[in-house]
Amino acid sequence: MAFKGVDYLDLDSELTSEERMTRDTVRRFVDEQVMEIIEEAYLEGRFPVELIPGLGELGVLGANLPEEYGCAGMNNVAYGLIMQELERGDSGLRSFVSVQGALVMYPIFTFGSEEQKRRWLPAMASGEAIGCFGLTEADFGSNPGGMATRAERDGDGWVLNGSKMWITNGSMAHVAVVWAQTPDGIRGFLVERGTDGFDTVEMHGKHSLRASDTSELVFNDVRLPGDAILPGSDGLKSPLMCLTQARYGIAWGAVGSAMACYEEALRYTTERVQFDRPIAGFQLMQQKLVEILDRVTLGQLLAYRVGRLKDAGKLKHTHVSLAKRHNVMMAREVASTARWALGANGIHSEYQVMRHMCNLETVFTYEGTHDIHTLIIGNDITGLNAFT
Amino acid sequence: MAFKGVDYLDLDSELTSEERMTRDTVRRFVDEQVMEIIEEAYLEGRFPVELIPGLGELGVLGANLPEEYGCAGMNNVAYGLIMQELERGDSGLRSFVSVQGALVMYPIFTFGSEEQKRRWLPAMASGEAIGCFGLTEADFGSNPGGMATRAERDGDGWVLNGSKMWITNGSMAHVAVVWAQTPDGIRGFLVERGTDGFDTVEMHGKHSLRASDTSELVFNDVRLPGDAILPGSDGLKSPLMCLTQARYGIAWGAVGSAMACYEEALRYTTERVQFDRPIAGFQLMQQKLVEILDRVTLGQLLAYRVGRLKDAGKLKHTHVSLAKRHNVMMAREVASTARWALGANGIHSEYQVMRHMCNLETVFTYEGTHDIHTLIIGNDITGLNAFT
Amino acid sequence: MAFKGVDYLDLDSELTSEERMTRDTVRRFVDEQVMEIIEEAYLEGRFPVELIPGLGELGVLGANLPEEYGCAGMNNVAYGLIMQELERGDSGLRSFVSVQGALVMYPIFTFGSEEQKRRWLPAMASGEAIGCFGLTEADFGSNPGGMATRAERDGDGWVLNGSKMWITNGSMAHVAVVWAQTPDGIRGFLVERGTDGFDTVEMHGKHSLRASDTSELVFNDVRLPGDAILPGSDGLKSPLMCLTQARYGIAWGAVGSAMACYEEALRYTTERVQFDRPIAGFQLMQQKLVEILDRVTLGQLLAYRVGRLKDAGKLKHTHVSLAKRHNVMMAREVASTARWALGANGIHSEYQVMRHMCNLETVFTYEGTHDIHTLIIGNDITGLNAFT
Amino acid sequence: MAFKGVDYLDLDSELTSEERMTRDTVRRFVDEQVMEIIEEAYLEGRFPVELIPGLGELGVLGANLPEEYGCAGMNNVAYGLIMQELERGDSGLRSFVSVQGALVMYPIFTFGSEEQKRRWLPAMASGEAIGCFGLTEADFGSNPGGMATRAERDGDGWVLNGSKMWITNGSMAHVAVVWAQTPDGIRGFLVERGTDGFDTVEMHGKHSLRASDTSELVFNDVRLPGDAILPGSDGLKSPLMCLTQARYGIAWGAVGSAMACYEEALRYTTERVQFDRPIAGFQLMQQKLVEILDRVTLGQLLAYRVGRLKDAGKLKHTHVSLAKRHNVMMAREVASTARWALGANGIHSEYQVMRHMCNLETVFTYEGTHDIHTLIIGNDITGLNAFT
Repeated sequence: MAFKGVDYLDLDSELTSEERMTRDTVRRFVDEQVMEIIEEAYLEGRFPVELIPGLGELGVLGANLPEEYGCAGMNNVAYGLIMQELERGDSGLRSFVSVQGALVMYPIFTFGSEEQKRRWLPAMASGEAIGCFGLTEADFGSNPGGMATRAERDGDGWVLNGSKMWITNGSMAHVAVVWAQTPDGIRGFLVERGTDGFDTVEMHGKHSLRASDTSELVFNDVRLPGDAILPGSDGLKSPLMCLTQARYGIAWGAVGSAMACYEEALRYTTERVQFDRPIAGFQLMQQKLVEILDRVTLGQLLAYRVGRLKDAGKLKHTHVSLAKRHNVMMAREVASTARWALGANGIHSEYQVMRHMCNLETVFTYEGTHDIHTLIIGNDITGLNAFT
Repeated sequence: MAFKGVDYLDLDSELTSEERMTRDTVRRFVDEQVMEIIEEAYLEGRFPVELIPGLGELGVLGANLPEEYGCAGMNNVAYGLIMQELERGDSGLRSFVSVQGALVMYPIFTFGSEEQKRRWLPAMASGEAIGCFGLTEADFGSNPGGMATRAERDGDGWVLNGSKMWITNGSMAHVAVVWAQTPDGIRGFLVERGTDGFDTVEMHGKHSLRASDTSELVFNDVRLPGDAILPGSDGLKSPLMCLTQARYGIAWGAVGSAMACYEEALRYTTERVQFDRPIAGFQLMQQKLVEILDRVTLGQLLAYRVGRLKDAGKLKHTHVSLAKRHNVMMAREVASTARWALGANGIHSEYQVMRHMCNLETVFTYEGTHDIHTLIIGNDITGLNAFT
Repeated sequence: MAFKGVDYLDLDSELTSEERMTRDTVRRFVDEQVMEIIEEAYLEGRFPVELIPGLGELGVLGANLPEEYGCAGMNNVAYGLIMQELERGDSGLRSFVSVQGALVMYPIFTFGSEEQKRRWLPAMASGEAIGCFGLTEADFGSNPGGMATRAERDGDGWVLNGSKMWITNGSMAHVAVVWAQTPDGIRGFLVERGTDGFDTVEMHGKHSLRASDTSELVFNDVRLPGDAILPGSDGLKSPLMCLTQARYGIAWGAVGSAMACYEEALRYTTERVQFDRPIAGFQLMQQKLVEILDRVTLGQLLAYRVGRLKDAGKLKHTHVSLAKRHNVMMAREVASTARWALGANGIHSEYQVMRHMCNLETVFTYEGTHDIHTLIIGNDITGLNAFT
Repeated sequence: MAFKGVDYLDLDSELTSEERMTRDTVRRFVDEQVMEIIEEAYLEGRFPVELIPGLGELGVLGANLPEEYGCAGMNNVAYGLIMQELERGDSGLRSFVSVQGALVMYPIFTFGSEEQKRRWLPAMASGEAIGCFGLTEADFGSNPGGMATRAERDGDGWVLNGSKMWITNGSMAHVAVVWAQTPDGIRGFLVERGTDGFDTVEMHGKHSLRASDTSELVFNDVRLPGDAILPGSDGLKSPLMCLTQARYGIAWGAVGSAMACYEEALRYTTERVQFDRPIAGFQLMQQKLVEILDRVTLGQLLAYRVGRLKDAGKLKHTHVSLAKRHNVMMAREVASTARWALGANGIHSEYQVMRHMCNLETVFTYEGTHDIHTLIIGNDITGLNAFT
């Protein structure tokens, strides 16, 4: 069944034809290739790797990076629409693409040497090479600056020790962008699969984002050549710049998830009959549907606004905090209400709502928890630090 | 103290210089002429009539009607910004202007004869003539189509009987646009003050919108000339068209009220010290401020979006329902949270928050209650009527 | 790790020593036998049948039915405490016991012949025989009175046709209490596994209550002997009486689920350190913990109150609606907030919060959805029917 | 019209006949003497002093203090029921009684000399003498320990300087219990009206608790005799003990306010017809009514529980924080929803809901704001101080 989308305030008319075309192409890909396999992949707890070549062909990996490096060179609204459509399929799918593009390709593009860019970006754009991003540690989630992973000088190279947790794509990545304390502050390194002392362990038993590879990365005396470092990386602000990119995409992705929930709730309740009426005809149900529509629509306006600001070069990281914080909370509440609207059927994998609802718990937490974004914005508007 | 406004996502950059100038002019008017008198007028329970000439000079009365009739001929975004700025001052002030422009001048312009337009519109634009809008009755609020007021043919003229309730500007209006059942369905009439049998009674004892004239209109065998009818009016849809205009303005006005609350809460909490710190530095307070900012910002995006749609001729009444419903609920919650943030001082008229909080209860209810808009939108998206 | 319980307002002091002892015994059983296996059973999607003999020995199956039939003869507060403790383990476990006791043993006890009671109740109390309750159909959830399943007279016996959906314990039950339309209105029947034409199909792909057997029951020309009918059953009110029993237990069970979430959130946040402090020391986290405690405590007061009313013979079905509705919503919100408090770890099966959060979606829906209970109570207090 | 009360879960049956009789007597007093004057007093912004003699006769002033001092010697549940019934009338009325009893008579009883008790308690119990409680200062609300008011030794007596803000009963009190820094820490003093250098200024312009005297107390070199000190007072914990008494009464009072709102909302919506039906017959309205009933009922259980704990000598100040925090938030939300339910009429003083809604903003803030109670309870359960 083709996804129709939700566009109560005709935002479509604000999009360029290229943006619309991009959106429609990804939408079709999700309809045709994702929807039929995603629930099963989710139940099995595996990322659907069979989709990777298609994603590469679509041009969605690092889509807003330049064509010079094999990327699609799209603007940020088109990029956002891609995230929206992918997360309409599944948050795990969008997470894969976010990590690849915003957390691996972006730092290589931004902090990497020309050689690093040439080597990795085209391969990653096509999906031949997969990357992951190692920042979070078991004991340092909201406070990444406290990380324990260290890289020490060792002749011309480095020795890396430590471990990273909650790493999307970790077990399937060919290369990891790893952030470590060094004598010069926090720096980024490219660590390739197969390097001695580098191991990955996939996590099992997740109740959320099950169609995604979440792993631990372990570094035991990993020797890295001198050119493993990202030369332009410089302190904690470098990984934070990556997070801003990823969070931007999440603000759009969450809208997609919410759109999926709205569409399903609307379809279900207009078809489901109780007391001889479609249940969408009861006031308590219309209230749910209207509340969902309201929230989706507002989320769309927000994503669109930050997209245009980003394309205009005016987007601040605090804007992104507002957008990520708002839209994920919005999607979380939308999914919960939509699940409610589906009654008993809403807990079953024949329907999408509860998968989205569960996925969004991860999205709500990663890339800056809701509360951390509250404090980032609070600091911005009051000038007062309330983190600690 | 000059109002600085709230514009976290730089919507200013989307406005034309004319729109900005209009906004700034009204903002200054409110700073200079409204703020110093409004709390007292509110406590006294009177509309500040001394502001009317200034409003006329500003060009805010019927501001989006054509210059041909003495109006400012502004676009709908400029009109919306005016409503925003006025309600930043007080919801009663914005209500006065909404009624005058959207509920009296608009129907005269839309359904009136050329003679009616020439007679009333220029005088109303300048504030020399004041109008009110008689639709709601004591027993017919959410269901205006059931109205009991009737106009019967009487020779060339009409005889009007009935009464209208909750009528803003009722006691000071020179003319009332009155809706009545006739043998041809619901029609609109212009009833002038002083006509025999027409009385107005101002309501006292309101806990909300106290700086506003709210009155009852009573019609006992009021004889009207044949040309008292609005010739183009035709059924219930005519007053509903007026409501759509007014609701559009409310969607903007509520944003202004919320902006006032945000600014005051931010200023107060950054200045108020407890436990040796500005209270804006505590997490529980930052959460309130950020939540307010978030909601104001989203409301602004929504108002702006429906404004551009209206200017493009694409705005549907269901869009307006979404905007009125969302933004007033937004402002209601913002005012309540801002009042919370101000602690004990928040109940006092030295501060604005509680006046806004109380005012918004009226705004939440009039021009289609929150629930009625829920059912309007619900009907639109499901195709199912759940009103009754 | 032993569960400590939550008792902020010392409700313990209101319990009899027998009630406390019952509670503590079941608590220990859950600590020792349930906790270590439940997450895995949940992930695997199977009910932990190995627990059944222990449940029988504990006396929790049909615990408030008389000793004469092999049951424990407990009062309703003790029964409620059992439900609380079991659901502290898992909602699926409590569901198993609720169905067995309130939906199978209760109707056999209340509507059954002496022979039926003798045959089934002792075997069910010990867990040797398992039962299920067939009321809901795919197209008749909130409106069971519309059921399509029919039993027709066939000589001395009956022929049963139809199907039942969302049946807890369905695939493992030795006997089903099945409700069907008959020429005399709705009546209950005992249908034993193995009867020709009677099939059960377990549902797969649930995102909730995974440690529970949820099945479809299918009846194709199932011939039943004359004594298969529950002689005392009489119309829709008979199964509704069963639902009242089950809902009563759910009101207590939900408290247990919420208590588990509170305890885990409190432990986690006092142990988890970020920014050099246990995160329970941050205001935004204390707010979550206090809100959870508040809600759990109120839910306990409510469960206790309806328990004492039931023991006094004064409990109405509308009271039970209030208690089920409130406490499940309470637990749903508590679980969601607790999951939030656990951050990334909160999505993992090493912790309980997300399992509870997912389970509660089912509990929220079954045995009268939240909205249905709203309308039951609304009808009670207004005298006006708003169901249709 | 006689108030019927709200008692969905038959808590009446738990009350002693004496408790019920006390409750009914006060209820009748409110019906007969308060209801007809309270809205007007509120609009005028004055405390209805004409009620004081009646309150004295009723025995509600210091009702839980011993008969030995002219008080009623009631238990704490009876005392709580009195507060409930009074606040059903108006929060300002209950505030008057709370201050008199819990904040003036209680500290005189607890920390006063026998002479002080003999002098003041009987006169206060009868309403002949009125007291107020001076703790809060303009710059020290949530942090009273930082107070600037000081009492210095001066021969056998004291010299008092400073000022107190937000003092209920301040302008009509015959005596003020004033807390001040001394060389021995914070101590309490009795300051009588008419003492040189002691002035009171009533606040005007409140949007809340308008039927209450809220004043500033100013002390300029006020000379006090040596026996003005409360000899048993000892540090900040003494006024905090008083607050615990007052907060206990507020937890009950808020229930009364919420009960008034429920009753009015139920009556209004069952009588108000729109679309040819009482609006209580619409789902969206039943949802509001049921939500209100639910919240009122839970609040009653909570008040009753802390009452019994207090009578048993087991009530901790943290329990009182939970009860004050919960019940006032409950009442605040109930009043807001009830006002919603009354539509346009809900803003008018012919109805009670908006007066309660506005009053509760003060109740929500005084005697420990909602957030302060969050942090008190948070500290209790986590062992971690998050105040600063």
